[in-house]
Amino acid sequence: MTAPKRLRVGVAGLGVVGGGLLDLAARKDGQLAQAIEIVGVSARSRSRARSVDISGLPWFDSPSDLAALEGLDVLVELMGGSDGPAKHAVETALRRGVAVVTANKALLAEHGAELATLAEQNRAALRYEAAVAGGVPVIKVLREGLSANQVTAVAGVLNGTCNYILTRMEASGASFGDVLADAQRLGYAEADPTFDVGGFDAGHKLSILAALCFGGAPSFRAVRIEGISALEPVDIAAARDLGRRIKLVGRARLVDDRLEQVVRPELLARDHPLAGLEGALNAVMIDAAPVGRLTLVGPGAGAGPTASAVAADLIDLAHGGVRPVFASAHSRFVSRPVADEGGQGRFYVRLRVKDRPGVIAAVSDVLAHHGVSIETFSQKAVEDASRVPIVLTTQAVAEKELRTALAEIAGLEAVVELPCLIKIDA
Amino acid sequence: MTAPKRLRVGVAGLGVVGGGLLDLAARKDGQLAQAIEIVGVSARSRSRARSVDISGLPWFDSPSDLAALEGLDVLVELMGGSDGPAKHAVETALRRGVAVVTANKALLAEHGAELATLAEQNRAALRYEAAVAGGVPVIKVLREGLSANQVTAVAGVLNGTCNYILTRMEASGASFGDVLADAQRLGYAEADPTFDVGGFDAGHKLSILAALCFGGAPSFRAVRIEGISALEPVDIAAARDLGRRIKLVGRARLVDDRLEQVVRPELLARDHPLAGLEGALNAVMIDAAPVGRLTLVGPGAGAGPTASAVAADLIDLAHGGVRPVFASAHSRFVSRPVADEGGQGRFYVRLRVKDRPGVIAAVSDVLAHHGVSIETFSQKAVEDASRVPIVLTTQAVAEKELRTALAEIAGLEAVVELPCLIKIDA
Repeated sequence: MTAPKRLRVGVAGLGVVGGGLLDLAARKDGQLAQAIEIVGVSARSRSRARSVDISGLPWFDSPSDLAALEGLDVLVELMGGSDGPAKHAVETALRRGVAVVTANKALLAEHGAELATLAEQNRAALRYEAAVAGGVPVIKVLREGLSANQVTAVAGVLNGTCNYILTRMEASGASFGDVLADAQRLGYAEADPTFDVGGFDAGHKLSILAALCFGGAPSFRAVRIEGISALEPVDIAAARDLGRRIKLVGRARLVDDRLEQVVRPELLARDHPLAGLEGALNAVMIDAAPVGRLTLVGPGAGAGPTASAVAADLIDLAHGGVRPVFASAHSRFVSRPVADEGGQGRFYVRLRVKDRPGVIAAVSDVLAHHGVSIETFSQKAVEDASRVPIVLTTQAVAEKELRTALAEIAGLEAVVELPCLIKIDA
Repeated sequence: MTAPKRLRVGVAGLGVVGGGLLDLAARKDGQLAQAIEIVGVSARSRSRARSVDISGLPWFDSPSDLAALEGLDVLVELMGGSDGPAKHAVETALRRGVAVVTANKALLAEHGAELATLAEQNRAALRYEAAVAGGVPVIKVLREGLSANQVTAVAGVLNGTCNYILTRMEASGASFGDVLADAQRLGYAEADPTFDVGGFDAGHKLSILAALCFGGAPSFRAVRIEGISALEPVDIAAARDLGRRIKLVGRARLVDDRLEQVVRPELLARDHPLAGLEGALNAVMIDAAPVGRLTLVGPGAGAGPTASAVAADLIDLAHGGVRPVFASAHSRFVSRPVADEGGQGRFYVRLRVKDRPGVIAAVSDVLAHHGVSIETFSQKAVEDASRVPIVLTTQAVAEKELRTALAEIAGLEAVVELPCLIKIDA
């Protein structure tokens, strides 16, 4: 396939995500480096200590000046904030027909309609995979993967800080306030946590999902929002007694052609697709026809996941429509040798033996001889003394060695069936 | 944005998936109908009873003749089989530069390298979202959503028939043979089940995922495959005793730059992302840097899910690169009224009361007066008799009515705190 056009990109905002993006772009063999060239950066402070070296990149004090740079193809906006310089820079770019890639959910949730209009009027792309659920490519799945579907409902755990706090409250029994203070110390929560724990961040994201699912622009003002700060240990314990877990869930659906958008704590049944979510993960559950129900789970924030989403948007822009059939053009296919069988692992072994003295010792001897350590061992209730099932699990062992041992065991006179071996996931 | 080009599409294969696709294309307001026009169909029998009416569509006895149709933009291949007419039709189309969309994993797994070469030489797209995990858009996520990532490992439950059988064995305690016979009666398993229960179908899919994750073409011959037919109820029970579940898992990763591809039963810990999968669902877990771990879950087969994936490929081809910012161009934004608050639901209520006679009766009276039925009720251990927590759950009730009742309860002299209300997921 034709090589993608290398896009001239300006990055406005060099915090955690901006740094992650510059890191990715610096990997010379990566798809991002092949797709883009960074022609300018802008941030609040030029001199602030950063993990990435920006000394070789043209500096702009004003993000809007960067957006106005001659020859710019894409402005990446990672400043945040629904108004002020972020909005001004994005508008400057779009007005010029320069594409925008942003991670700014507040901006889209509050001003989505006018920005979409501006983008379309100027035939500029406006992409925002990183704005919802971080590294989970839910925008792409909704816009492209499910393009032939009618979404009937979307629900998600969209704020990692809240999920982290709820998970910690469950594990520790501590109060919301204590867990929040811990989370702030560990960097999982902001100094001013209202935006997260009040449910507003989840509301922004939900309004963007709802726009994609049900048409129209995001309508954040219409989201009913309730946060998690009123939850107490007694509620967490009561949920457990009910066989449930409390999660902050955002849901959107149409009710008689009216749009319902709600963010609130819910008691989810343990087998609910969103209930198993631990720590700072995000998840989105989509009900659509004809596909049915999809659930996507992954990291909702952080430098790596968010940069991954921003980079995917950039690479998409560079490719336009056509991509190789597999990971690369066939001229660059890698022909890899096949890995050796097995390797280390823990295993489950079931065998059937005649119920007579000495059999277990004989089996154990063979295993020990091959250096296989047994972790658990049990003989099952005997239905038929000529075929007694024995079930054991091993400690970590080379599969090859274990298979050799089992071949030997299969040859013992008291063993009446080829042993069945199943890998235990690490 | 510019309207997409309407593609002239031929559909070869009119089984369950072909029928589902024709159904979708017949919805005049849907994105698929706007994206494509069906200009010909082909199948083994013209006269066979079908749920869709094909009398108005040009018929081709030979799928390769359809592939050779003048003016054709895309051949959709839904016949199946790694060789024979499916391969011939696909090659005919690609040689002419006609795009191909296929759900045929066997074809890609066995002949991926030569088909990719043919596609690229003739600048024809070859797309196959439906070939892996049915309605789950994992091909798109890997190719586009994670384009800036290095995948380190991919693992999946890729065969719905096997997962259905294992789930039923767990639930019923029945033998593999009995559950398989049931599954065949219900249409969850083929008359000849070898392809599914032997792990070969999962192997085909794994080899396609591995090609996308690690470069190169699919190398199905190098997949180590073990099926589920040796599993017995004693294994299912032993897994449960170990706090685990048995799943047929396909895994691919690089081991010292060698490619390891294995399909085999594994004992997964209950909190493993693939362990919770019930029935005929599929799931794919991707470990990649910098994004971290993503898990995608959804229906792996069936008319609707598979047609959804085929249709997404077609709509992508029609759109080329540019899409509206949200679900539709801004001129077609739908402005929807906001739904009424609440609606019906079950709720959890926590309140704190003074520990004195008659309080519970007073609370219950107010609820009863508003038609709220209590499902569970418990008074928690008393730390402080002036603030006793009471936790109750309601049966289905209008939230508005419940909130009115709670406002009244909050006014009772013995109630010392505003009640906390949490929705219980249905």
